[in-house]
Amino acid sequence: MTRTGTIIDSEEITMVDILHRVGITAPVAEVYAALTTVEGLAGWWTADTQGSGGDVGGVLRFRFGAGGFDMKVLDLDPGRRVLWEVADGPPEWLGTHVSWDLAQAGDYTVVLFKHAGWKEPVEFMHHCGTKWALFLMSLKALIETGKGAPDPHDVKIDNWN
Amino acid sequence: MTRTGTIIDSEEITMVDILHRVGITAPVAEVYAALTTVEGLAGWWTADTQGSGGDVGGVLRFRFGAGGFDMKVLDLDPGRRVLWEVADGPPEWLGTHVSWDLAQAGDYTVVLFKHAGWKEPVEFMHHCGTKWALFLMSLKALIETGKGAPDPHDVKIDNWN
Repeated sequence: MTRTGTIIDSEEITMVDILHRVGITAPVAEVYAALTTVEGLAGWWTADTQGSGGDVGGVLRFRFGAGGFDMKVLDLDPGRRVLWEVADGPPEWLGTHVSWDLAQAGDYTVVLFKHAGWKEPVEFMHHCGTKWALFLMSLKALIETGKGAPDPHDVKIDNWN
Repeated sequence: MTRTGTIIDSEEITMVDILHRVGITAPVAEVYAALTTVEGLAGWWTADTQGSGGDVGGVLRFRFGAGGFDMKVLDLDPGRRVLWEVADGPPEWLGTHVSWDLAQAGDYTVVLFKHAGWKEPVEFMHHCGTKWALFLMSLKALIETGKGAPDPHDVKIDNWN
């Protein structure tokens, strides 16, 4: 909807991101591992995770009961940042970016999460915003307690899941 | 950052909203009551809730350990919509709007939540996005099970709370 140097109307500003922040009482290396290894990812997002998350250019295949996402790893900065691009999935997700920025703050690893590039704030985006929050809590639980809540054992939030 | 008719750079588009969606297996009237009565609000957001939420122009005073928010009720459409404006609170919240849109979908009341008008996607906004998700799950739990998780018994997500 909006482009560089284009005259826009404020009503047209629909570029909204999903943003979250959690703090995990663990070293950044543990959180980074849970975002870049199949074993880690399967422990908090979906048990059906395959592919390669530890190398730039690798592709991760996340499958859920109703479908799934393929994420291409665009950037990795060990202990600091992970960036994925959605290479396959529902149309609203295609081409969007998911970033994870990590920082140590005392006993915590603070995770700043962003799912950016949604074209419109559709109802599905509302749903995904809430689901991401609960999956981030699942990541936190996995690392702090050893047990996350990945699909199909994820927390259900509404009539869509 | 962006204004009607202004030439902008896409990097300047920072008007982001917090969006969430939950489904609650209850009639819309029950959800509406939990958003417009002090007793309801105290059951899922913060136990220290005072004021008036059932009349347009009323003010609700929500207090937490570290501070709080005053919300002015801007709009009410019974069983359908609640709109608040932040009249007092942290500077990032002042003047922002919190809306709740309700709709029946089968056995569910679907709640579309929006916290709009953030000037910048600051780290505090990331935190609030995650906290809102968990408070919405607290609202869902309150109505479905009779027991929510309002402050001070809310789910802690990071080193800020």
